[in-house]
Amino acid sequence: MSAAVSPLAPKSVPELPAIAGVRLATAEAGIRYKGRTDVLLVLMDKGTTAAGVLTRSKCPSAPVEWCRARLGGGAARALVVNSGNANAFTGKNGRAATKLTAELAAEAADCRPNQVFLASTGVIGEPLDAGKFASVMDRLTATAEPAGWLGAARAIMTTDTFPKVATATARIGATAVTINGIAKGAGMIAPDMGTMLAFVFTDAPIAAAALQALIARGVVDTFNAVTIDGDTSTSDTLLAFATGAAAARGAPRIVQPNDSRLIEFRRALDAVLQNLSEQIARDGEGARKLVEVCVEGAVSKRSARRVALSIANSPLVKTAIAGEDANWGRVVMAVGKAGEPADRDRLSIWFGGIRVAHKGARDPGYDEAAVSALMKRPEISLKVHLGLGRGRDRVLTCDLTKEYVVINGDYRS
Amino acid sequence: MSAAVSPLAPKSVPELPAIAGVRLATAEAGIRYKGRTDVLLVLMDKGTTAAGVLTRSKCPSAPVEWCRARLGGGAARALVVNSGNANAFTGKNGRAATKLTAELAAEAADCRPNQVFLASTGVIGEPLDAGKFASVMDRLTATAEPAGWLGAARAIMTTDTFPKVATATARIGATAVTINGIAKGAGMIAPDMGTMLAFVFTDAPIAAAALQALIARGVVDTFNAVTIDGDTSTSDTLLAFATGAAAARGAPRIVQPNDSRLIEFRRALDAVLQNLSEQIARDGEGARKLVEVCVEGAVSKRSARRVALSIANSPLVKTAIAGEDANWGRVVMAVGKAGEPADRDRLSIWFGGIRVAHKGARDPGYDEAAVSALMKRPEISLKVHLGLGRGRDRVLTCDLTKEYVVINGDYRS
Repeated sequence: MSAAVSPLAPKSVPELPAIAGVRLATAEAGIRYKGRTDVLLVLMDKGTTAAGVLTRSKCPSAPVEWCRARLGGGAARALVVNSGNANAFTGKNGRAATKLTAELAAEAADCRPNQVFLASTGVIGEPLDAGKFASVMDRLTATAEPAGWLGAARAIMTTDTFPKVATATARIGATAVTINGIAKGAGMIAPDMGTMLAFVFTDAPIAAAALQALIARGVVDTFNAVTIDGDTSTSDTLLAFATGAAAARGAPRIVQPNDSRLIEFRRALDAVLQNLSEQIARDGEGARKLVEVCVEGAVSKRSARRVALSIANSPLVKTAIAGEDANWGRVVMAVGKAGEPADRDRLSIWFGGIRVAHKGARDPGYDEAAVSALMKRPEISLKVHLGLGRGRDRVLTCDLTKEYVVINGDYRS
Repeated sequence: MSAAVSPLAPKSVPELPAIAGVRLATAEAGIRYKGRTDVLLVLMDKGTTAAGVLTRSKCPSAPVEWCRARLGGGAARALVVNSGNANAFTGKNGRAATKLTAELAAEAADCRPNQVFLASTGVIGEPLDAGKFASVMDRLTATAEPAGWLGAARAIMTTDTFPKVATATARIGATAVTINGIAKGAGMIAPDMGTMLAFVFTDAPIAAAALQALIARGVVDTFNAVTIDGDTSTSDTLLAFATGAAAARGAPRIVQPNDSRLIEFRRALDAVLQNLSEQIARDGEGARKLVEVCVEGAVSKRSARRVALSIANSPLVKTAIAGEDANWGRVVMAVGKAGEPADRDRLSIWFGGIRVAHKGARDPGYDEAAVSALMKRPEISLKVHLGLGRGRDRVLTCDLTKEYVVINGDYRS
């Protein structure tokens, strides 16, 4: 919490506009932290649709199970997010806590508990005292307002060093609609803190099933293409909400995800997801370098993804980048261990634009000094060409530094 | 190279007896290091059989490809191992270097190049100057002798902090036979240095195919059950050689791996493999804790292995252990992400003998102080019971410390 802001943080933070039909409030419920907000309540107007992508962990948190069971309904009126306690591996107590929280929020939002979505991030295995929400819910409801997006992003931080927000606009038919998103910390990167959480809001009138299809497709090359340490949280959650308020300004109601009027919206949504997920990589614990791993020439995109993740999750590749060492030997190792089709003698590797290895051996024209200069930059691009086919993919990660180990090796407080 | 000896190093080093039919010599060839031995030549008498298990990397080193092509022959007369250069990802030059090295050794051993086995460990991607072997081969041949096992283990070290040797005896029929083994550094743990290498020698008269079956089975729960950082080397090599010299003392020649006269030998061989592989975990880069991960109650042994590896390779579990934190929440995370059948509400977790989590929640009887005391020990045992079936397995690993990152983040020298 006391860590300095990541040197990879965006230089400027956009001002997020209001989204018609969405009101926000934050409070200090004292769940774990002192002297900072730790609860976010989002109230949404009637008619808001909901969609979500949740962790594939076999040991999901109670809020993840709550959301999974309610996404089928497709309707949302409230979202409650807390930081400090993940409500994961908390057994019956955890289920009771989600139920109580949803009931409290349902009363505040004048809706059914099934229209309340929940997310929690923080320590695993500690019982969550949902009673703490009771003491702040009235004030949250009373103070909810359309502004305050940055404050909302702050309330859900754990060991994040900066709040993560993104916004975009798009036209649906002739009507401009807005997309706002907030997110927090990548993967299981924090001391006892789980969870990547991201929430996206729009005033576009999009049916739940269509919204679900959009985000399910959208995460593939954004959130699912980011890795900090390969550790998948019990709580990873992306929820999207569409209030439909733009219909009053003439936006057509969209039911089918492949409706051609969604082309611009889909692009804008993908840009928000891309922006938020990149910010998560930029705030990887202890990160000093943002690393883009591109794999080309694979037998398929799926194969390229696996090779890229093998590289991006390799401790040896990540520590080499932390040491500003264009250590392509370790990239060869990571390609070799991925288990995907690869032929050493067709393999080429670039750092930045510089080819360092070609067809199974060091590139004879490779200038170590030029590559060394490049490795000192805060953003490193690493490309591998397998020379087998046309499959390509890209993932983002960060370097592995001493600070990661120090932060994650601390005692639980 | 300058690192202090691992605090987990064995307290005593056994004296390795001679193996009839095996002679050893080491030399300083100046491949990369100064002022230390970096080449090992092992000469073996006529009739020696050979078997091996090699890396599954799709980008194997030139010596691995050399050995793979020659294991079918089943006969060995010489082994040449160098440290300092892995001869991996070195293209045609690499293949030429293995050929030249084998020819030099074949001349020294008066055998065919196909009876020479090779292994290299060190930097990936640097051309290996096999000419350096030429300058030392005569002296190696002249000085080879049955003693000097510890020196042999030293010559193959890269960033290992101690030489790794093990020995055992067994009876085949009424005749005692000896098994000696040497090994070096686990996985891709070192700065640019690849490679786990292990070599086992015996005077037992065992046919190559039977020896192959014994070590293929032997590695499953020994070398293949050790992970330092999940990074698989381009060069991992285990070779076993049986001179058969004990036949002169009455040992029966064994052709079938399931010959009942091999029971004691197999147990002794497994003990040597277990001993060497454990030493590798004890010398994991920056390691301060030896960690045993046991998974029980899985649907199968294979499933238990995958869950155990997911735990043992998790940076968050490993950093928590470095911080002496019994952070079972991260163990839950690692179980959840393994992709194997698991049911959160049946899951129990122990550190040492202390159950910290039971049936999907924190164990109510769990004494934090007792567990904290236990976590200060140099050897940590972590057990997970999935509550699903009878599958069980065990892997060894070490903690992930700042030193790992420092060592691996250094510039290549």
